Amino acid sequence: MILENIKSVKDLKALPLERLPELAREMREALIKRLSVHGGHFGSNLGIVEATIALHYVFNSPSDKIIFDVSHQSYCHKMLTGRADAFLYEEQYDSISGYSAPYESEHDVFTMGHTSTSVSLALGLAKARDLKGEDFKVIAVIGDGSLSGGEALEALNYAGEFKGPLIILVNDNDMSIAENHGGMYRGLKELRDTKGESQSNIFKAFGLDYMYVDNGNDVFALIDALEGIKDTKAPIVLHIRTQKGKGYAPAELKKEAWHATTPFNIDTGERLFSKNGADSYANITALHLLERMKNDPSIVSITAATPTVAGFDEERRILAGEQFIDVGIAEENALAMASGIARAGGKPVWAVNSTFLQRTYDQMSHDVCLNRSPVTTLVFNSSIYGHSDVTHLGIYDIAMLSGIPNLKYLAPTCYDEYISMLDWSIDQDKESVAIRVPYGRALPCGKPVRSDYSVCEYEIAQRGEGVAIIALGSFFELGKQVCEALMAKGLKPTLINPLFISELDKDTLDCLIGSHRLVVTLEDGILAGGFGEKIASYLGDKDIKVKNYGFKKEFPYTYTLDGILEENRLTTSQIVDDIQNII
Amino acid sequence: MILENIKSVKDLKALPLERLPELAREMREALIKRLSVHGGHFGSNLGIVEATIALHYVFNSPSDKIIFDVSHQSYCHKMLTGRADAFLYEEQYDSISGYSAPYESEHDVFTMGHTSTSVSLALGLAKARDLKGEDFKVIAVIGDGSLSGGEALEALNYAGEFKGPLIILVNDNDMSIAENHGGMYRGLKELRDTKGESQSNIFKAFGLDYMYVDNGNDVFALIDALEGIKDTKAPIVLHIRTQKGKGYAPAELKKEAWHATTPFNIDTGERLFSKNGADSYANITALHLLERMKNDPSIVSITAATPTVAGFDEERRILAGEQFIDVGIAEENALAMASGIARAGGKPVWAVNSTFLQRTYDQMSHDVCLNRSPVTTLVFNSSIYGHSDVTHLGIYDIAMLSGIPNLKYLAPTCYDEYISMLDWSIDQDKESVAIRVPYGRALPCGKPVRSDYSVCEYEIAQRGEGVAIIALGSFFELGKQVCEALMAKGLKPTLINPLFISELDKDTLDCLIGSHRLVVTLEDGILAGGFGEKIASYLGDKDIKVKNYGFKKEFPYTYTLDGILEENRLTTSQIVDDIQNII
Repeated sequence: MILENIKSVKDLKALPLERLPELAREMREALIKRLSVHGGHFGSNLGIVEATIALHYVFNSPSDKIIFDVSHQSYCHKMLTGRADAFLYEEQYDSISGYSAPYESEHDVFTMGHTSTSVSLALGLAKARDLKGEDFKVIAVIGDGSLSGGEALEALNYAGEFKGPLIILVNDNDMSIAENHGGMYRGLKELRDTKGESQSNIFKAFGLDYMYVDNGNDVFALIDALEGIKDTKAPIVLHIRTQKGKGYAPAELKKEAWHATTPFNIDTGERLFSKNGADSYANITALHLLERMKNDPSIVSITAATPTVAGFDEERRILAGEQFIDVGIAEENALAMASGIARAGGKPVWAVNSTFLQRTYDQMSHDVCLNRSPVTTLVFNSSIYGHSDVTHLGIYDIAMLSGIPNLKYLAPTCYDEYISMLDWSIDQDKESVAIRVPYGRALPCGKPVRSDYSVCEYEIAQRGEGVAIIALGSFFELGKQVCEALMAKGLKPTLINPLFISELDKDTLDCLIGSHRLVVTLEDGILAGGFGEKIASYLGDKDIKVKNYGFKKEFPYTYTLDGILEENRLTTSQIVDDIQNII
Repeated sequence: MILENIKSVKDLKALPLERLPELAREMREALIKRLSVHGGHFGSNLGIVEATIALHYVFNSPSDKIIFDVSHQSYCHKMLTGRADAFLYEEQYDSISGYSAPYESEHDVFTMGHTSTSVSLALGLAKARDLKGEDFKVIAVIGDGSLSGGEALEALNYAGEFKGPLIILVNDNDMSIAENHGGMYRGLKELRDTKGESQSNIFKAFGLDYMYVDNGNDVFALIDALEGIKDTKAPIVLHIRTQKGKGYAPAELKKEAWHATTPFNIDTGERLFSKNGADSYANITALHLLERMKNDPSIVSITAATPTVAGFDEERRILAGEQFIDVGIAEENALAMASGIARAGGKPVWAVNSTFLQRTYDQMSHDVCLNRSPVTTLVFNSSIYGHSDVTHLGIYDIAMLSGIPNLKYLAPTCYDEYISMLDWSIDQDKESVAIRVPYGRALPCGKPVRSDYSVCEYEIAQRGEGVAIIALGSFFELGKQVCEALMAKGLKPTLINPLFISELDKDTLDCLIGSHRLVVTLEDGILAGGFGEKIASYLGDKDIKVKNYGFKKEFPYTYTLDGILEENRLTTSQIVDDIQNII
């Protein structure tokens, strides 16, 4: 076996050319085996095996810098840069991150997991190189799906006037996570169909030199091409056609389903378990919206290239028809377009992962909220229980959104509250609304829920005295547990489900003064700029103490769930101890 | 005079075609006269006179929707939609906003003042129209400068697959605020040079239909073109070449200087006063950076199309040479590229207006701070004293930035502190740093300032007891005044210049407990998510009260400075009254 002897890129470079296809086969096999057990990004990694070999064969990482956009397709790079064991030996499968990670290897230049950033970052490296008179090579590797993101397009434009050497390898597998969206993809198809000869060439339109390789899974063709351009004096695009999922029949056939995968049976392609069950919030969201769309043609569900975040698989997208919009990887356009839809009387519902919402701070502020456009934003994976990679954490959105005027940010705690808030938001036309979708199974509330959220009014789940626990959204359960533990110690705490994140129910807070000595807030997000601080500020000059619980403002690289909760004093017993110490 | 009889678009439509050039002359004259007295956006409005006449002549606003990108070029539109008096009569010059404003007129569809949003917003209007089976026209008017922004590029791409009618009028005057940047502008030049025939066509590359009008200041040619495409069934780009500053010789000659103007002498073109004096922070920033660049080729100043924000006029850009980067309107690329520069050992200094910083929340979080890239961001106009239009307010940046991990946000209060922080930030390579540039004249501090800002340590300006005033950045002066007023009443307040916005000096705060009953915080920004709340939270369970002062979280449409300060209880006497009531 060749792969087990690739301890560094040196070992790769020592291989004779003719053995590279064999190495590619081994890498593919290792990828499939590891992913069948561990899960992870699948299709793009299978497609980019040969290109990664060719890159490391021709260039000299780490002195030359190779930047893998979004790093969904960086597994092969990891295999060839000293981390093959993590793909060969099951006991080491967990030893690497799923993303580019400088703390793992000097061959990973940036920590990255958001799309469309590679060309900008590469331009920066190249600029610093030129200012300092150094002479390493810089290569940005970007998938066709990521090209539609504003950050990538801005960078392609600037690259068109950049004066130094830069290689932009466009890995074109004709797919984003789902199908691509936008007119540029007809142009890319024409380029593939004409083997790079089509007149309509988006890269040339940005002023870039251009070269095409039709068989992007032919390692020899790729090495030839890279050798030919490696001493380029100006930015050049190398456009290669690859096959997403190459080498695993089910993935070649169903590209969207195999963009990423949970563990599966290699022989049948069957998943060992499903991520989104029937009672997932993703699933119930799509079903509810489809039901409402039937009676209201002005309701439209919007995604930026992640349709299944809100449960819209291919079948449901067809059902929704014109009432479903996928703009491709283009969050800014998604949200600004939603504002336009709302202003003309449509009812847009935009579903987005908390971590990608970050792409739209200005659009939320300027395009939506400044105009009071009645857009509904559903913020998924907004919880420490969601995505755990440091590039995808969902604990920053409260801080981000709560500084934006005119935005009503709501925190349901269970199924009925969620649906009720969603319906209220769709049916009203006065406010910009975001809903922090709970994490986990959508369970019934077991209590009546209100139908109107126009006025900020907290819900008192239990009236007591001395200590009041205000437990937001997905931490309401934690609040209940703290309450029970306090009651077991003879206290009579008040328990509040605030429902509203970005506004204060001052009446309820005022009522706590006198009868309570301490208000405790719990939120599933960072404390800085969050929910609790606003309560501490409001009550700061009153005769009542406030203790805020949430997460430290940090990027935790690796953590266990129990560990990070304990480290932030977020276990029931820690909170109870603190409360007893304060009162 | 024709213009004084244009009370609505109806009056325009009633004019015979042949009188339109006369109207254009009158509009230009009114524009020049008003701007010479009032100031405002100049060049683009002079260039778009004929196109605006043609749009309103052919289409039926407000049922048809015309969206003027960034609304720098919406003055002519205002003249023709019932607001001509605001351009004809000096006493009414102040009656309109400088931007698109729905509260002024139903012809203004959105409140907008940030670039590159028009195509997305127009797409949304068109989508809602089609879902609801309505049939009005939608026209996005976008300048060539705004095309390079990610939001616009994302929208052009999606427009290329959009199925309904949409007109995108590209007003190409070959300028952004300064010169354009990016490879696409070579393509636009080729299109102009070939009268639209060049093969390299960015619009066609995005899948859009395309039409070119060479003389975009010929109202008849424009009306013909618009009549020809008004019933288009699919999105189409109408690319017109116009002359920025047309009709005013000094502005035709010096386009950058005349993008916007303060009041000026019409005969000579001389400005009656200058915005940026020698002691402006813009001016001293450029001078200081130029000085440092001489000795360090790795220092590079970056802007996204607003070079003079940090004082880099044309002459200074030439002096800086390769050490100055203007990426064009492309904030995302600017900041992500800065991260790349920093990672490769360069020293990037990015200067940006507070309001446009909003474009880069994700880049600041993911591309810069997650990677601890030592980028220096200078946040200008970050104050209630800065831009006063609701689309450009600089009071939200503290809330936005203080939720981003690994970012050190600093608040100097005077010249020496500012320069010292800037130098420290440039010279260190461990931290991502932002500096909130004070507003107004850069005055000496009159005291020694520290040279190291790696450890968060507040500066105690005056030690006292009972009440501690923590007065941040540009509100330090207000803090001093409050202090003096309290001392006049026999109190002995402590006065603190915190210097650090996004971190807490817990030691200093702890020391206040016991000797002080009240901590007052003052910040020149919104309270929600801001500086003071973090102190309220930290001290929430201690035996000390906290009162936060800052601005309500809102978008104030129109305000006077005195009014908004008083409304937020930010006058010295109001604060002193409150303090006396609390203690």
